[in-house]
Amino acid sequence: MKTKPLYYAVIFTSTRTDGDNGYAEMAQQMEVLAKQQKGFLGLESAREEIGITVSYWESLEAITNWKQNTDHLIAQEKGIKDWYKEYKVRICLVEREYDSKK
Amino acid sequence: MKTKPLYYAVIFTSTRTDGDNGYAEMAQQMEVLAKQQKGFLGLESAREEIGITVSYWESLEAITNWKQNTDHLIAQEKGIKDWYKEYKVRICLVEREYDSKK
Repeated sequence: MKTKPLYYAVIFTSTRTDGDNGYAEMAQQMEVLAKQQKGFLGLESAREEIGITVSYWESLEAITNWKQNTDHLIAQEKGIKDWYKEYKVRICLVEREYDSKK
Repeated sequence: MKTKPLYYAVIFTSTRTDGDNGYAEMAQQMEVLAKQQKGFLGLESAREEIGITVSYWESLEAITNWKQNTDHLIAQEKGIKDWYKEYKVRICLVEREYDSKK
């Protein structure tokens, strides 16, 4: 198994409430904002019954800074209040990775 | 930030080829089979433009055993050949987690 330099993944899984309630616009804004953060490496997202967003970061410090970003704090508050029935955040150290491309 | 006992997450991201080609049936079979493995903790999945499947495991040993499971090896081979344009696997140590439920 190929070993690469270590970095971090934040796995955010969520179940949405009914209706948009401003969610789509804010989600897009947060994606733009996340990409501007120091230490941001990438973001992948998909939603069916549940939503899974995985963001990748250079360090725990970068994750902490993003969590405490003022605009992001406002979004987190609205997320708890309006958008999510439930969510879970997992902070993970990516230890190994491999891929296949055609 | 709440700290919990450590476990592992396998983040599998993929882009599908066109058509089903037996994918849906095999994906379901693999989910049933994964759940029977020693050390399996859970699985979450969503697909839009890309697919994200995150499976959770007690140890690296459990992940290795699942990777080498005979039926799973056949599925992996078909995956590379027929189902995925590209995929990436990340083996991650879950260091911290927190959640919110209503």
